Amino acid sequence: MTDPETPRPVYDVDPWCVREQDLHLDRLAQSESVFALANGHIGLRGNLEEGEPHGMPGSYLNSFFELRPLPYAEAGYGYPESGQTVINVTNGKIIRLLVDDEPFDVRYGRLNRHVRSLDMRAGTLTREVEWRSPADDTVRVTSTRLVSLTQRAIAAICYEVEPVHEPVRIVVQSELVANESIPYLGNDPRMAAVLEHPLVSEEHVSNGHRVVLVHRTRRSGLRMAAGMTHEIHGPEKLSTEAESFPDVGRVTVATRLNPGQRLRIVKYLAYGWSSQRSRPALHDQVVAALADARLTGWEGLLREQREFLDEFWEGADVEVDGDPEVQQAVRFALFHILQAGARAERRMIPSKGLTGPGYDGHTFWDTETFVLPVLTYTFPTAAADALAWRRMTLPLAEERARTLGLEGAAFPWRTIRGQECSGYWPAGTAAFHVNADIADAVVRYVDATEDAEFEREIGLELLVATARLWRSLGHHDVHGGFRIDGVTGPDEYSALTDNNVYTNLMAQRNLRAAADMAMRHPEVADRLGVTTEEAASWRDAADAMLIPYDERLGVHPQSEQFTNHARWDFSQVGPDQYPLLLHFPYFDLYRKQVVKQADLVLAMHLRGDAFTEEQKRRNFAYYEAITVRDSSLSAQTQAVIAAEVGHLDLAHDYLGETALIDLHDLAGNTRDGLHLASLAGTWNALVAGFGGMRACQGCLSFAPRLPGGISRLSFRIRYRGRRLCVTVTAEKALYELHQGPPLRIAHHGEEFELGEDPVRLAVPPIPSVPRPAQPHGRGPAPRRTDPSGRLRPVQRGEL
Amino acid sequence: MTDPETPRPVYDVDPWCVREQDLHLDRLAQSESVFALANGHIGLRGNLEEGEPHGMPGSYLNSFFELRPLPYAEAGYGYPESGQTVINVTNGKIIRLLVDDEPFDVRYGRLNRHVRSLDMRAGTLTREVEWRSPADDTVRVTSTRLVSLTQRAIAAICYEVEPVHEPVRIVVQSELVANESIPYLGNDPRMAAVLEHPLVSEEHVSNGHRVVLVHRTRRSGLRMAAGMTHEIHGPEKLSTEAESFPDVGRVTVATRLNPGQRLRIVKYLAYGWSSQRSRPALHDQVVAALADARLTGWEGLLREQREFLDEFWEGADVEVDGDPEVQQAVRFALFHILQAGARAERRMIPSKGLTGPGYDGHTFWDTETFVLPVLTYTFPTAAADALAWRRMTLPLAEERARTLGLEGAAFPWRTIRGQECSGYWPAGTAAFHVNADIADAVVRYVDATEDAEFEREIGLELLVATARLWRSLGHHDVHGGFRIDGVTGPDEYSALTDNNVYTNLMAQRNLRAAADMAMRHPEVADRLGVTTEEAASWRDAADAMLIPYDERLGVHPQSEQFTNHARWDFSQVGPDQYPLLLHFPYFDLYRKQVVKQADLVLAMHLRGDAFTEEQKRRNFAYYEAITVRDSSLSAQTQAVIAAEVGHLDLAHDYLGETALIDLHDLAGNTRDGLHLASLAGTWNALVAGFGGMRACQGCLSFAPRLPGGISRLSFRIRYRGRRLCVTVTAEKALYELHQGPPLRIAHHGEEFELGEDPVRLAVPPIPSVPRPAQPHGRGPAPRRTDPSGRLRPVQRGEL
Repeated sequence: MTDPETPRPVYDVDPWCVREQDLHLDRLAQSESVFALANGHIGLRGNLEEGEPHGMPGSYLNSFFELRPLPYAEAGYGYPESGQTVINVTNGKIIRLLVDDEPFDVRYGRLNRHVRSLDMRAGTLTREVEWRSPADDTVRVTSTRLVSLTQRAIAAICYEVEPVHEPVRIVVQSELVANESIPYLGNDPRMAAVLEHPLVSEEHVSNGHRVVLVHRTRRSGLRMAAGMTHEIHGPEKLSTEAESFPDVGRVTVATRLNPGQRLRIVKYLAYGWSSQRSRPALHDQVVAALADARLTGWEGLLREQREFLDEFWEGADVEVDGDPEVQQAVRFALFHILQAGARAERRMIPSKGLTGPGYDGHTFWDTETFVLPVLTYTFPTAAADALAWRRMTLPLAEERARTLGLEGAAFPWRTIRGQECSGYWPAGTAAFHVNADIADAVVRYVDATEDAEFEREIGLELLVATARLWRSLGHHDVHGGFRIDGVTGPDEYSALTDNNVYTNLMAQRNLRAAADMAMRHPEVADRLGVTTEEAASWRDAADAMLIPYDERLGVHPQSEQFTNHARWDFSQVGPDQYPLLLHFPYFDLYRKQVVKQADLVLAMHLRGDAFTEEQKRRNFAYYEAITVRDSSLSAQTQAVIAAEVGHLDLAHDYLGETALIDLHDLAGNTRDGLHLASLAGTWNALVAGFGGMRACQGCLSFAPRLPGGISRLSFRIRYRGRRLCVTVTAEKALYELHQGPPLRIAHHGEEFELGEDPVRLAVPPIPSVPRPAQPHGRGPAPRRTDPSGRLRPVQRGEL
Repeated sequence: MTDPETPRPVYDVDPWCVREQDLHLDRLAQSESVFALANGHIGLRGNLEEGEPHGMPGSYLNSFFELRPLPYAEAGYGYPESGQTVINVTNGKIIRLLVDDEPFDVRYGRLNRHVRSLDMRAGTLTREVEWRSPADDTVRVTSTRLVSLTQRAIAAICYEVEPVHEPVRIVVQSELVANESIPYLGNDPRMAAVLEHPLVSEEHVSNGHRVVLVHRTRRSGLRMAAGMTHEIHGPEKLSTEAESFPDVGRVTVATRLNPGQRLRIVKYLAYGWSSQRSRPALHDQVVAALADARLTGWEGLLREQREFLDEFWEGADVEVDGDPEVQQAVRFALFHILQAGARAERRMIPSKGLTGPGYDGHTFWDTETFVLPVLTYTFPTAAADALAWRRMTLPLAEERARTLGLEGAAFPWRTIRGQECSGYWPAGTAAFHVNADIADAVVRYVDATEDAEFEREIGLELLVATARLWRSLGHHDVHGGFRIDGVTGPDEYSALTDNNVYTNLMAQRNLRAAADMAMRHPEVADRLGVTTEEAASWRDAADAMLIPYDERLGVHPQSEQFTNHARWDFSQVGPDQYPLLLHFPYFDLYRKQVVKQADLVLAMHLRGDAFTEEQKRRNFAYYEAITVRDSSLSAQTQAVIAAEVGHLDLAHDYLGETALIDLHDLAGNTRDGLHLASLAGTWNALVAGFGGMRACQGCLSFAPRLPGGISRLSFRIRYRGRRLCVTVTAEKALYELHQGPPLRIAHHGEEFELGEDPVRLAVPPIPSVPRPAQPHGRGPAPRRTDPSGRLRPVQRGEL
C-alpha cells in the first residue's frame, strides 16, 4: 500500500478530521493509537474489525490492571515489590467477515479503497473499504465506531457490507475475545507471563444475539464483564447463531447478498469491572447497559455523541490561521484529552489515556501539570474528578509518607490505583514535586471555578496533606533558610539534588495555598487538625524558602551547585545517540549540565511571579543551550517561555513539535499510545504561549503576541462561570465575553473590565532579540518551511 | 549442649588457639566460619566431617563462580546484566562414620566430650569427640584438618576412631559430594536456581583408594576437578571399596575394633579448576597433586605447615598485654588474613576470604584499603599478588571506563573475575574511590618494599590507568579548581555527592604518584603513552583539587553541602532500628547528616598530611556525633584517629569492636563468612592507632601511645627488607631492628637512626581531652569492664 521509499504524510490535514486515505500497513500501530476511541472509562484502540493484521490489539478499562513483580538486583527499604500494569481486556471490536468462504483480510486480495476517518465533531471513527477478494468477489464494507461519551459503559459499531458486482455468500462473526495474544517486546519472562493470559474465565453465557463473558485477574483480584448484543438488518433469508466459551463469545450471521442488498449489523458493547462486586452483579450490570443502549439505538447514540461534543467545542475550540497542521493538531489534542478525561469519574487519567499500554498505563505528574490545565479551562468537571481521585488515594499516600519517614502524604511517582509503582527511586519517589503539582492543580481549579464545595471536600485536604509533606521534607538551616535537600526535579538528567528551584517554588506555593485555604475553611481545617501554629509554620517555611541564584553567571542554577558542574560535551554526541539515557549512564548525566526537559524553565512558567523579566530572558537562553528535549514534556514549556521573552518564531517551532508528536510520530513510539501531556502542550503553547494567558488568585491576564507563521489565533475558555473568547492577530487582540457576568482581566499588564461589549486592544511591539542556541543538532524543526503555501492572509474586518 | 538461658563465651580466650569446649549447636554456622581453613586458593568451612548437622556447607575455590542474573525493575544504560557468585564446590571434607550400624550424628546419642581447636601456630583444626551412640557404644573420634599453605592444591584430614569400652563394628565412608543442598535465604527464585545445582558432571572415576570427580558450571563455563586418596591404618581384617557416581565419590572402609585398637585414615584432598584447560588436563592435575601430597605424607604436611607459620609469625606477631581477648583476636585476624592471601596467587582476596558465601564471594575496595596494609607489612608477596590480579583485570576496567564515557580504567565496585557485578550503581559504580584505593595500595606496597620490578611491571600501569580516570572524571571549574562531582565516598549513607573530601584527597595522591612514578620509569611510561603534557595535567589537577571546608563550623564537610543538610534525628531511632538501611529509605539517609562508616575520618588516616592537628580534633568530634557504624569497616578507622587525637580509651573500645567482630559475632552474620577487613582492623587499630605507625615516601614514623587497658604492645613489621619490632608501654617505646641495614625512622615527630642497638624513647604525655559523644545508643561497648581481672601489670625490666 505504501512505498517505504517515498514517505508521505499518513493523515490528511483537515481542520476537523484525521483521515487516512490509504491503509498504511507500516504505520498500523501508530494509527491504532491515533484512531483510538475512549470516554475515560473504556478505551478501544483503532484496530481493524477483523482483528488482523494489527500492531497491538488493545481494549482497556480505566484502572483495570494486573500486578507484576518489580525485581531488584539489590533490594532496599521501601522499594515497592509489586507494580501495576494495564492489561488488554476482552476485545469486543472483533467482527470477522467471510466472502464466499474467503476471510476478509487486507493483506490478501486487493484493496480498491480503504479510508479511515476520525471525526472530531461527531466523535466517531469511520472506515470505508472496497475489497476484491482473491476469488475476485468485490464487496464494500463500511463501519462506524463510537465509544459513548454519554453512556459510560457503552461502545457501538455499525457494520455494513454489500456486494459490488456479483451476488456473494456472506458470513459475519461478531465476537468477544479474551486473552488475545499480544506482542511483548521486553526481556523479562515474568512480565511476559503477566501479560500473556491475564484473565481467568468465571462465566460465559449466550442468549439470542447477546453474549456475556465474565473474567477475573489472577493476582490483582479484579473482576470484569463484557457483553455484546446486536441489531441485524439484511435479506430475509438470514441465519444467526450465538455461542460462548470461556474466552470467546460469538454471534454468527450468514446470508446471501445480491448487488444492491446490504447486511447491516449494529453491535452494542458494554463493559463493567469492580474489585468488590460479585459475578452476578457485574453480569447484570452489562446486560442492563446493553438494554439502555439498544433503547437509545444507533442513531440515538450518534446524536447524543454529537450534542455532547458540540457543547464541548462551544467552550473549548481553538482556531489557528496560517498553520493548518497546528489547527488540526490542537483539535486532535483537545478531542483526545476530552476522551481521556470526560468519563474517568474519579479514576486516574493515564499518561497515554486509554490508547495504548505505554508506561504500563500509569499516571504521572504530567496529568496534573500539563493535562489538567486544559481540562480546567475547557471541561472543568473532568479536572475536578481527576483531583477527586487523588483525594481518594490519600490514605495510600499517607501510608507511603510514613514509610518514608515523612508527615502528610507522599503521592506516588507512577501508579494506577494509588500505590507507588516506581522501581527506580532516584527518578521516582525522590521526585517529590508531584505533590506540589497536585496542589498546584487544586489551586488552579479552585481559582478557575470558585468551586467552594470542592475546596471543602477535596481541595483543602489535598493541600494540607501536601503542605505537611513539604514541612517535614525540608528544614531550616542555621541561617534560617528553608532547604529541601536530596530530591529530584522535573529534569530527569539530574537527581537527588539540593534546593531544586522548581521544587522549592512549587512547594512554596503549596505551603502558602494550604495556609490560605485553611483560613477560609476553619471548620474543615479544624477537623484535619490544622492549628494556627501549624499554618504559621507553613507560611514561615514558604517565606524562608531557599532559592539558589548564581550571581556570577546571573542565572538561577536549576538546583544548588548545578552551574558549577561540567557542561555536557555535545560535540561528542552523534545524532543517533539521543535520547541520551539510552547511550550514556545516569551517573554521567546526573553530574553534568545537561537537561532532559524543562525544569527551571517550567518554574518560570508556573511561578513566573518569582522571576524578573531580565532573569527570565537570561535563564531561558542559558537553559536553551543545554536542554536536549529527550522528554516529550519539554517543548511546550520552552514554547511558552520563548513566547514570553520574545522568541516568537522559536516558540512556534516548539509548538509544532509538541503538537505533531503523535500525528507525525515524532518520538517514534506513538504505537504504545498517545502522548497526552504533549498533546495538551499544543493548547498550552497556544493559549499560555501566544495568548500569554496566566491565571492566579482571580487575576486572569493575557499577553497575546503571534509569530510570523500564525496570522490569527482564537481560543475559547471557561473561567469562573463565564465563557470567554480571545482572538489575536499581529496587531490587535479582541476580547469577547460569550456568557456570564462582567470580569476584570488584564491585557499586557493593563487591567480592564470585560462586559457585554467586545474589547479590542493593540498588541504592543516587542524588540527583536537574538535567537538562543540549542545543543548541536537539537534545535526544533523550523515551522515556516513554506510560508507561501501555508499562511492564509487575514481578511480585513475579520477581527 | 548449650543452654540458651545462660549465654557464655563460645570460645576459650587463649593467646594462640581458638577452642570450643562444647559443641554449640546454636552457633554452628558461626563456628564454621571461625574454624574455616584456607590457603587463598582452597577454602573449607569448619563443617563437621559427618556433614550433618550444618549451618552452611562450604567448600570454595578462589574465583570459581557461577553467573547469576541481575534484574532491574527499570533498566538503565551500563547496568551489568549478569553478576558472579561464589559457589559451593565438591565437598571433600565428608567422612561419615557408622558405629554398629548407628550413624555418628551429634544430635543423637550423647556427647561425652566435643572439643574443637584452631591452632594458629600449627595451622590445623583439631576435633576431639567422645560419643555414646543411642545403642550405648562409646567411641572416641579425633580428626585433624589442614589446608596446606605449602602445597596450594592440597587439603588433608587425619581421622581416627577407637572404641572406649566394648568392641564395635566400624564403617567409615570418606566422600566427595558435589551439588550439596544448601540453605538459600533470599527470595529470588532465579538466584536460588543458580545456587541449587551449580555443577554439571563431566567425569567420575574411582581407582583403589582414589576417586576423582570433574564438573563444570552451567553458565560461567568453568571446569573443576576434585580428587581424594587415602592412607588407611587399622586391624588386619579390614575391607575397602571405592566407587564413583556423577555427584558422589566414596571410599568405604569397614572393620571391627576392640578397645585399644584404632582405625586411622589420612584423607588427601586435591582441587583444581580452570576456564581453559581440558577435562583430562584437570583430572591429571589433581591426581599429580595427590601423589605429591602422599609423598610428603601427613607428618610432612604438618611440618611444612608449622614451618611456614613460624616464618610468618616471626615477622608479623603482635603481643598485647592487658587485654587477652584482643591478644587472641589479633592473632586470629593475622592468621585468617594469611589464609586468605597466602596462596591467592594473582587472584582476588574476597571480603569474606574463602570462609563463606557472604557478599556473593566478591572482593571490594576494603581488600586494598584495610587488608593489604596488613599484608604489605607482614607478608608482602601476597599484597603484590593481589595487586597483580588487579593488573590482570585492567582490560576489563578499561572497557568499563569506556562504557561510562571515561578515560583510563574504572575498576569494579564488586567482582570475582573483574567484571562489574554491582546492581545498584549509586552505591556501586559511583563509588569511584575504589580506583584511588587500588592506587594507594600500589604506592604503599612500593614504599614498603622498594620492589622496582613490581613498579615497572604492575604498579605504574595501575597508577597511570587510574590517574587517567580521575583526570577525565573531574574538571576544572571557572575558578580553576578541580572538581569531582556526582560520586559516592566510603560512607554509603550519602551518595552522588560533589567533591567528597576522601575521594578528592585520594585522587590527588593517585594523580601525583602516577606522575612521579612515570618520571622514574620513562621507558615504561613511554610505552603506556604517557607524555610530559599528560603528567603535567595530572599534577595540575592534583594541585587544584577542591577540598571543601566549612568556615562557619570549622570542620570539613564530608562532601560539598554536607554540613548544610539536616542532622539525622537519632532520638527517634530505636535500638532495633540499626542498621538504619534496613529501616529507613536511602532517599532519607542520603540527604541528611548521618554517616554509616568513616569517610572524612578515613581521609584523616590515609591522608593525614592534608589536615592540621586542630582540624583532626574538630573533625573527629563532629563526625563522631553522627557516625552510626552500620558498617563493620568503620570502628578500626575511628580507633586510629581517636588514638591520634588523644581519645585513647575510646580508641581501645573501637579496637575491641573491630577485633571481636567474628569471635563474638558482633554483626550477627559471621555465619556467612568472616569480616576480613574488620579483622584486619585489629592490626590497623593496634599498629596505626596505638603504634601511630605511618609510612609515606620512605618516611616511616611512629607515635605510640597506649590506653589504660593495655599495659604493653609489641608488634613486628617488615619494611624495605628489614624486620622491625616496636614495643610500647605507658611511658616508653623500644625500637629494635631484627634484620636488615640501619633505617631512619621517627618517634613522635623526632627522627633517629635505628641500627643494631635497640632505641628506647619516652612517650610524650598528651593532655586529656573530653571524650566525644556518639549518636544515642551507638557508642562502642566499653573495653575496660573489669580491669582487675584482665590487666596484667607490666613487670619492671620487661622493656
